[in-house]
Amino acid sequence: MSKNETPRDPNEVLEEYEETLDSVLAEVESPDETTEDDDLSLGLPGLSLGRRDFMKAGVAAGAMGSVAGCSALTGGGGSAGSQSTPSGSGASHTVEPGEHDEYYGFWSGGHSGELRVVGIPSMRELTRIPVFNTDCASGYGYTDGTQEMLEEGGGYSWGDNHHPNLSETDGDYDGEYLYVNDKANGRIARVNLTYFETDAITDVPNMQAIHGCTVLSPDTKYVLGNGEFRVPLPNDGTDVKNPDNYTSLFVAVDPESMETQWQVKVDGNLDIVDTGKEGRWAISSAYNSEEATDIQGMTKDDRDNVKAFDIPAIEQAVENGNYEEVNGIPVVDGTQDSPLNKGDRPIVKYIPTPKSPHCVEVGPNGDYAFIAGKLSPTVTMLDLDALADSSDPEEVVAGRPRVGLGPLHTTFDGNGHAYTSLFIDSQAVKWDIEAAVEAEEGSEDPIIEKQDVHYNPGHIQALEAMTTDPDGEWLVSLNKLSKDRFLPVGPIMPDNDQLIHIGQGEEEMELVADHPAYPEPHDCVFAHKDKIDAKKVYDKDDYEETYITEEDSGVERTGESSVHVKMTTKRSEYGLPDFTVQEGDEVTLTTTNIEGVQDIIHGVAIPEHDINYAVAPQDTREVTFTADDPGVYWIYCTFFCSALHLEMRSRMIVEPAEG
Amino acid sequence: MSKNETPRDPNEVLEEYEETLDSVLAEVESPDETTEDDDLSLGLPGLSLGRRDFMKAGVAAGAMGSVAGCSALTGGGGSAGSQSTPSGSGASHTVEPGEHDEYYGFWSGGHSGELRVVGIPSMRELTRIPVFNTDCASGYGYTDGTQEMLEEGGGYSWGDNHHPNLSETDGDYDGEYLYVNDKANGRIARVNLTYFETDAITDVPNMQAIHGCTVLSPDTKYVLGNGEFRVPLPNDGTDVKNPDNYTSLFVAVDPESMETQWQVKVDGNLDIVDTGKEGRWAISSAYNSEEATDIQGMTKDDRDNVKAFDIPAIEQAVENGNYEEVNGIPVVDGTQDSPLNKGDRPIVKYIPTPKSPHCVEVGPNGDYAFIAGKLSPTVTMLDLDALADSSDPEEVVAGRPRVGLGPLHTTFDGNGHAYTSLFIDSQAVKWDIEAAVEAEEGSEDPIIEKQDVHYNPGHIQALEAMTTDPDGEWLVSLNKLSKDRFLPVGPIMPDNDQLIHIGQGEEEMELVADHPAYPEPHDCVFAHKDKIDAKKVYDKDDYEETYITEEDSGVERTGESSVHVKMTTKRSEYGLPDFTVQEGDEVTLTTTNIEGVQDIIHGVAIPEHDINYAVAPQDTREVTFTADDPGVYWIYCTFFCSALHLEMRSRMIVEPAEG
Repeated sequence: MSKNETPRDPNEVLEEYEETLDSVLAEVESPDETTEDDDLSLGLPGLSLGRRDFMKAGVAAGAMGSVAGCSALTGGGGSAGSQSTPSGSGASHTVEPGEHDEYYGFWSGGHSGELRVVGIPSMRELTRIPVFNTDCASGYGYTDGTQEMLEEGGGYSWGDNHHPNLSETDGDYDGEYLYVNDKANGRIARVNLTYFETDAITDVPNMQAIHGCTVLSPDTKYVLGNGEFRVPLPNDGTDVKNPDNYTSLFVAVDPESMETQWQVKVDGNLDIVDTGKEGRWAISSAYNSEEATDIQGMTKDDRDNVKAFDIPAIEQAVENGNYEEVNGIPVVDGTQDSPLNKGDRPIVKYIPTPKSPHCVEVGPNGDYAFIAGKLSPTVTMLDLDALADSSDPEEVVAGRPRVGLGPLHTTFDGNGHAYTSLFIDSQAVKWDIEAAVEAEEGSEDPIIEKQDVHYNPGHIQALEAMTTDPDGEWLVSLNKLSKDRFLPVGPIMPDNDQLIHIGQGEEEMELVADHPAYPEPHDCVFAHKDKIDAKKVYDKDDYEETYITEEDSGVERTGESSVHVKMTTKRSEYGLPDFTVQEGDEVTLTTTNIEGVQDIIHGVAIPEHDINYAVAPQDTREVTFTADDPGVYWIYCTFFCSALHLEMRSRMIVEPAEG
Repeated sequence: MSKNETPRDPNEVLEEYEETLDSVLAEVESPDETTEDDDLSLGLPGLSLGRRDFMKAGVAAGAMGSVAGCSALTGGGGSAGSQSTPSGSGASHTVEPGEHDEYYGFWSGGHSGELRVVGIPSMRELTRIPVFNTDCASGYGYTDGTQEMLEEGGGYSWGDNHHPNLSETDGDYDGEYLYVNDKANGRIARVNLTYFETDAITDVPNMQAIHGCTVLSPDTKYVLGNGEFRVPLPNDGTDVKNPDNYTSLFVAVDPESMETQWQVKVDGNLDIVDTGKEGRWAISSAYNSEEATDIQGMTKDDRDNVKAFDIPAIEQAVENGNYEEVNGIPVVDGTQDSPLNKGDRPIVKYIPTPKSPHCVEVGPNGDYAFIAGKLSPTVTMLDLDALADSSDPEEVVAGRPRVGLGPLHTTFDGNGHAYTSLFIDSQAVKWDIEAAVEAEEGSEDPIIEKQDVHYNPGHIQALEAMTTDPDGEWLVSLNKLSKDRFLPVGPIMPDNDQLIHIGQGEEEMELVADHPAYPEPHDCVFAHKDKIDAKKVYDKDDYEETYITEEDSGVERTGESSVHVKMTTKRSEYGLPDFTVQEGDEVTLTTTNIEGVQDIIHGVAIPEHDINYAVAPQDTREVTFTADDPGVYWIYCTFFCSALHLEMRSRMIVEPAEG
């Protein structure tokens, strides 16, 4: 283990930052390396400040982001930066027509609210899964069932999903579910991977922003979420101007019932979370130990504290009744001064790290948690075994290699290598895990290779890197900026997801492909195709709605102002060529696709009624609306299903109310 | 010109159909060629009928769709079908990392409501442009400006866009605008190609479904739309059960003001439209000349009538006051019996074609309109010069080559070749245009080559095929079904957009790549990259909203229950670290991104208020909402903009109402 002084001399920490800043400024002071499109002065309002002031000021980060773009554009920035050599190598990501990809990639869609399924290595987007958004292509948010789920899940039309997680059994993906957070509204959603559709959304009480999200390995006992924003508890208008009483929570949600189980109150703002492989530790990065409310205050001190949640200890506290109930949820006190943290087995251990670290990823064998430094050019490695006995950095920090500027996330090839994304250097850096343990703190010795990416990477993921047995071969760098990498498409530019060949870790990294991404993927997770077993036709017993046969097709008046219309769909024909309702009727329309052939999907579009939804083979969907406007409306099929698709219609006649 | 008998003997036409059917049934009767997943019996309820009955029945089309999939899956189906040989050829669609595509492709998104911008030849989706849908990634439908536009455009949250059209000057793309229809709600939208965003939506009166949509070549005098569904005029509840009085309209919209100019009433259901190159003719395909209301009735007769709209003649009729005004729009009578069609210069010419044709495309030099037969295995070529003198098929039908089963759309390489998509055969067929004129009607002589596609293609487009100077090289086949071509993603499978190399038309067609597409692209249009001039940073003078400077940032109470909050955004910081409003206040939040650097976008997310929007460099956006719930809400940036992006927040405090 390397030596760590805690707390370090603030001046020493600051020197480290200044060194970072020197590299940044060196770029800025070479004006011939800037391009016309990247007028850096606009991003650097702080240049007239002294360097220490500059680094301390919130605007500094603006400079860093801007310079990163510049650095990458001019090909410089990293001392060990390699030029990409995309042509002429052996690595090909081409998947020939008709052949299948080897891996599923599940991409979070950020504030698009959706998930995206991407084939690896082709990088083709296979489908989208609407989650927190509404989607008129599938009818998600248009049918009664999906509308009710979204309404019960908070009633929002968007969300901000960051971290997709596959359900695990024995530490490996079981292909059942995917769980993902909503940072905007403090929610967690579940996606059913048999049908590739969202089947549950939980609006977690007491939390405004769930950012980090993971499942508890090895058997998905919980879905765990980090509440990032500190708010009054409860946030009901009392104590709004007393930030000292704001709080940040950590939450456990049951993966089956999707009900919130318990929460833990902590100091500072929680960020990203990952768990060890044995069901005990959840490690969360955190920032703003100052508990300030503006960026200057949040970056005032030199240290922040990573939180290590001891899950069985928390469960014991809940069982012992050591909690306060808020909005029906047991909230356990895990702040530094809590009595629950003073005994032999504290429920949360606080481990000091350099200021404002970003991600936590636990390595494949569960030995170490890797905490990327963000503002520090290092990755802090925590020894999870040592955690059981201590939270003293001297004991638990196993290594702290110096990887480059702006480290955000780390991934693994399963052969002893870590790969860290460098936001400011715009690089992926490959390093040797054990060499980092043996090297001195802050040494660059473990660094093997750096690969330029374009530009400003966030998450970085290699195949099945979050399992106990990563597959290597390919790595994806999710870059936030694309700048001039693609044909211009107006001011809102795509992100750039880059595919890098890493083999089994013995070869050099090779940049193989750029792929534009609509805003804004944050993270992705990969599963070998054999681990997912998607159905191609619905099993009608899976759904509550009544399956409609052709004989059932008809109109039933269910009340003075309500009718139930039932109709089948099959190629070219709805079960009813027409039906009549009265102005003002509440119409419930139930539709069953009676076909058994895969890929024969029918749509039900009702013009001028803002209704459209898909009905896949053997599926039944229902929609309820009020027939407000008398007239003739041609319900038509929106999925091109047969040669006479265009002629496939049902005529809804809304008769005017009498008088 | 080939000889045509009009009207043809119905039995002769039926024989033609039966021949089609024979090929279809031949596939069905080879059960060993079906796969387990494609249980064709489910799609063939009509198999026990006699063949003539089967063809006449609406369900026949179901069989056709199903069999097409089977045919393609088993590699058969087309007599001249070539196996794809994707590997080892010279044609590569790879665009190396950092290099640009050569062409923009603009894809309609069907009932997803959006447009998609795809790079050619890489087939990478560069961005999405929300049009008729809402989009929480960009904030389209969330800001005041976009909300108002959608509200004034009908107030719907979705639409069904089919046919994207680029604005033209002198018959070539000028890069200014793109126009696209909404089939679901009778609308036409305009997309500004400087900023790649929708800037106008027109809810066209009197029309329920605008399907075909085109611009009038060569100078975009009008955007023209085909009303497909026949409804009462006006559709206000009167005469709802009298289909004889339903009507279908053709519309002209001004491309600048986006106001509806005039409409023309016609017989039958209009389908697709294209124009000649000299500003006179708009040719619309049409079906249901029976004016029936169910599929059996719509397929009863043997013929339908293509409509040739004589635009100057219509303008003259409007100028002469020969119209009825309905909902403020001049509606000209263009039905077959109209007096306006009886004189020397009829406003609409009716040209009989085989039953239920599908698309119309006018060839590059404007000589011919190509009408794909759908149920007939032929393409009907109309001579546009001859149209001036006659609407007698004997005079105006220049050729009718027999291309294969289920012809839907035709495209061009500019070197004398046409390429027609065959929905039932699942093929692209390449044929010689002049040879087709010289061959006998129904001859296969002009056929050069057939290429299997996977499966059931709709539109087919070659590069700049709709201009007077097509570029050849690449062709895209938009296939409706993908079946087993990709990793399974649940019952709602993607479409399959296939890239085919055609060179300059002298080489063999070669299938190069499969690309999955989220439901449901219908058509696409390509422009060389030099024809589009997208801005990367907003010009603040382009927008009405007030540009906010850092000095302007602040809160102004504008009424007893209303406040105006102004704040800038730049990397890491909003102009206001916090602001306070009162419970019940109507809050207008105006945000300017004061950065001038491309690709530095900031987001404004307000948790638990269902608000998020993007503000690109130098752009200003505004949102108005009511602060209903007292509490603390952390407004945060949804575009990862700098190393301190996570710390970038503004704190909105909603103080509880007194008492």
